[in-house]
Amino acid sequence: MTSTTEALELIKRGAQEILQIEELKDRLQQARPLRIKAGFDPTAPDLHLGHTVLLNKLRQFQDLGHEVIFLIGDFTGMIGDPTGKNVTRQPMTRDEVIDNARTYEQQIYKILEPEKTLVVFNSSWMNAMNAAALIELAAQHTVARMLERDDFHKRYSTGQPIAIHEFLYPLIQGYDSVQLKADVELGGTDQKFNLLVGRELQKHYGQPPQVVLTMPILEGLDGVQKMSKSLNNYIGIAESPDEIFGKLMSISDEQMWRYLELLSFRPMADIEALKQRVAAGMNPRDVKFSLGAEIVSRFHGPQAGHQAQGRFIARFQHGAMPDAIELVKLASRNGGYPVANLLMDAGLVTSTSEALRMIKQGAVRIDGERLSDRGLRIASGSTHVYQVGKRRYARVVVGDTGTD
Amino acid sequence: MTSTTEALELIKRGAQEILQIEELKDRLQQARPLRIKAGFDPTAPDLHLGHTVLLNKLRQFQDLGHEVIFLIGDFTGMIGDPTGKNVTRQPMTRDEVIDNARTYEQQIYKILEPEKTLVVFNSSWMNAMNAAALIELAAQHTVARMLERDDFHKRYSTGQPIAIHEFLYPLIQGYDSVQLKADVELGGTDQKFNLLVGRELQKHYGQPPQVVLTMPILEGLDGVQKMSKSLNNYIGIAESPDEIFGKLMSISDEQMWRYLELLSFRPMADIEALKQRVAAGMNPRDVKFSLGAEIVSRFHGPQAGHQAQGRFIARFQHGAMPDAIELVKLASRNGGYPVANLLMDAGLVTSTSEALRMIKQGAVRIDGERLSDRGLRIASGSTHVYQVGKRRYARVVVGDTGTD
Repeated sequence: MTSTTEALELIKRGAQEILQIEELKDRLQQARPLRIKAGFDPTAPDLHLGHTVLLNKLRQFQDLGHEVIFLIGDFTGMIGDPTGKNVTRQPMTRDEVIDNARTYEQQIYKILEPEKTLVVFNSSWMNAMNAAALIELAAQHTVARMLERDDFHKRYSTGQPIAIHEFLYPLIQGYDSVQLKADVELGGTDQKFNLLVGRELQKHYGQPPQVVLTMPILEGLDGVQKMSKSLNNYIGIAESPDEIFGKLMSISDEQMWRYLELLSFRPMADIEALKQRVAAGMNPRDVKFSLGAEIVSRFHGPQAGHQAQGRFIARFQHGAMPDAIELVKLASRNGGYPVANLLMDAGLVTSTSEALRMIKQGAVRIDGERLSDRGLRIASGSTHVYQVGKRRYARVVVGDTGTD
Repeated sequence: MTSTTEALELIKRGAQEILQIEELKDRLQQARPLRIKAGFDPTAPDLHLGHTVLLNKLRQFQDLGHEVIFLIGDFTGMIGDPTGKNVTRQPMTRDEVIDNARTYEQQIYKILEPEKTLVVFNSSWMNAMNAAALIELAAQHTVARMLERDDFHKRYSTGQPIAIHEFLYPLIQGYDSVQLKADVELGGTDQKFNLLVGRELQKHYGQPPQVVLTMPILEGLDGVQKMSKSLNNYIGIAESPDEIFGKLMSISDEQMWRYLELLSFRPMADIEALKQRVAAGMNPRDVKFSLGAEIVSRFHGPQAGHQAQGRFIARFQHGAMPDAIELVKLASRNGGYPVANLLMDAGLVTSTSEALRMIKQGAVRIDGERLSDRGLRIASGSTHVYQVGKRRYARVVVGDTGTD
C-alpha cells in the first residue's frame, strides 16, 4: 500500500504544475481508482520521447492503482487543435484520423498497462451530438476569455485570422471531461487553458471538477527547443535501438538529469545518488549509458538496451572514445548546413577540401556511422556527434537557436 | 406585365439600401419567380406597424410575381439574436418559441398573399444538423470579422461578455439562405451584417449569392425612437380600429409623409400629388385621415377605416376639432408623468389643481376619450392628443428624447 504522501511525491515528480493540490489529496484519500484523462490529437501518430513524458506520468498513476483514460481526439482532430498555432489548421479527413488513431494505439502499450487503460474516441459522443447541444456548450464560455488565451491573443492582435470553429475546440475538449467524468486531466503546459475549460464545464454539468496537472514540454536533442519531428531534434520510440542509444549519448550532461527525471522510471532517490557520484568524479557518460539502456529496453525488449550499448562502444573502437566530447553550436543555414563546412566550422578539419578528402577516405563518422555522402546537408535543430579520424570528436548542434 | 424598370422602382420605394442593384436587375430579368427571404425572430409575436415595413416590401415583391419565404427562426430563437443587444440573451424554451411562431402565422396574412407565401421554420433543417456540420459552418468566418460588427465591437471593448454561441447566430441565419436558395433577402438595417454573411455562405456552398435589401427602422409615434413595444410608442396591428386611427392622427405632419411611403400601398405618384396639394393649402389632417382609414381597413376590413374615421370626428365633437394641434415635447419622468402636471406643463391649464378639477368635471380627453383617472401617469415615449374643454388641444410627446 502506498500512502497518500508517497503517492503525491510520485505524482509531483517532473510535473510542471498541479493546480489544485488539495483537491488531489482529497481524491487520493477516497481509496478508489481515479479516472485519469489525457487527450491526444491524432495528427502526430509517430510518438517520440517528448510524447512519453505524459505517458510516463499516466503509467505512474497506473502503478498507484488508478485507471487511465487515453482519449484519442478523433472528432476534434477534424477541427485541428489551434493551441500554439498561428494559422488556422486544415481539418483532417475522417480516413486520416482513423489511420493515425490506429497507429497511436499500437505504440502506447510500450509504456501503459493495457488492463488499466481505457482507450476512447471522442467521436463516440461527439458524432451523436447535434447542433443545438453544441450551441449550449458554446453558451458556457465568452469570447473575451477565449481571446485571453496567449495564442489566440497573439493572432487576434497581429491580424492573423482565427476561424470561429477554433473557439469550439477547447469547449469540446472540455466536454470530453464531462463525458468521461475525469478526476484528473493531464496535459502539456500549453494545454493548461483547455484543461481548465474542462473543469468549468464539469461544474456546469454538476460534476466535481477535475484536478489539472500539467507536464513540462521536453526539450529536444538541442537542449533548447521543444522536441518535435519538424525540428528534427527528436528520438522516435519506433527508431532502432542504435539510433535511440546514439542520440541519447549526444545530449548534454545537464540535459541528462532532466531526461532522467522525466523519462526514466528509476526512483528519484537513485537519481539523487547518481548526482552525488558524478559530483564525486563518476564519468557522466556512464550515467548516459544507463539511461540509454533503460530507454532502449523499454521500446525494444529487456536485452536490447545492453546490446545497443555494446554496439555503441564497439563502433567507437573500444577505448578510443573520449570521456568528454566538446559541444559546438553553429547557426543554421538555409537549405541545411553543408557537412564539409560544418566539419571545418566545428574545428575538426582546417579546410573544406580536407573535410572532403577525409569523407572520401571513410574517416568521418556521424553518431558512429560512417559518412559517405559528401554533399550531405545537416538540418536545423539537429545534434550529432561528428568524428574525424580516431581522435577528433565534437558534438555539434545546428540551431535555430543562434550560436551563443 | 411590369417592366424591370417599373419593378425596380417599386422595390426601391422606401428601401434603405439595395447592396447589389445590378445583380438584382439581372435576376429580375430572368423572368422567373424569385425567392424572397425574410427571417423573423419569434420573440416578438405581437406585430406592430414597425414590423409591417418589411412585410409591405414582401407584399410588393408578391405583387410583382415573386415568392416570399417567410422564415420563422424558431431554432435561432433558442439562441436569441444578439443583434443590437448589449447583454447575452436568455435562450427561449421550445414551447415559448412554438407558441410565438403560431401567433406570428396568424397575423401575417393581413398583408401577405397566402398563395405566394411559404412559411418555413429553420428548425426543419437545424434540428437535423449535427455538431460536425455546425463546426464546418463556424469554420467559414473569422473572429475578427465578427468582432467588427458594431454591437459585438462595443460589447467587447467595454468588457460586456459575449458568449461564444452568439457568434454562431449570424452563421446559422446565413445558412438558412443556403437551405432556402434565396435570391433576395430583406431585413432591417440592423441586419445588414447578418444578411451579408448569408451571401458569403451561399458562395461557399456554390450558390449565386443573394441580393441584400435593407429596409429602414420605422420611427414610433414620438417620431424619434424606433417603434417598439417596450418604448410604448407603437401601433399594434391587433389594436382596435379606434386605437389605430387615433394613434395615427397623433403623428406629426413630417412623419405622416414617412408613414405614407413605408406603410401605405398608394402609388408614390398619388403621394407626390398629395404633397403638392398640402403645399397649396390642403389641411394635412385630411391626409392623415386617408392614411388612418387605409391602415385600419387593412387590419379590420374594408369598411372599418371609414367607420373609425367617423367615430374619431364624432368624439372630437364634429366641427370643434382645430386644423392644427400644437406639438409639445416634455422630458420623461421616472415612474411616468403625472397627468395633472402634464396638462399644466403643456400649457392647457394654469395649475395642477385646475387640472384635477377639469378631470373631475369630465372635461379632459386623451385621444378623444374621456379621462377619469386623476392619478394616471403617462409613460415615456408616448404621444397623445390631450384636450381640455372644447378648444384647448395639444399633442404631447413624453420623451426619452429630451425636450428640444
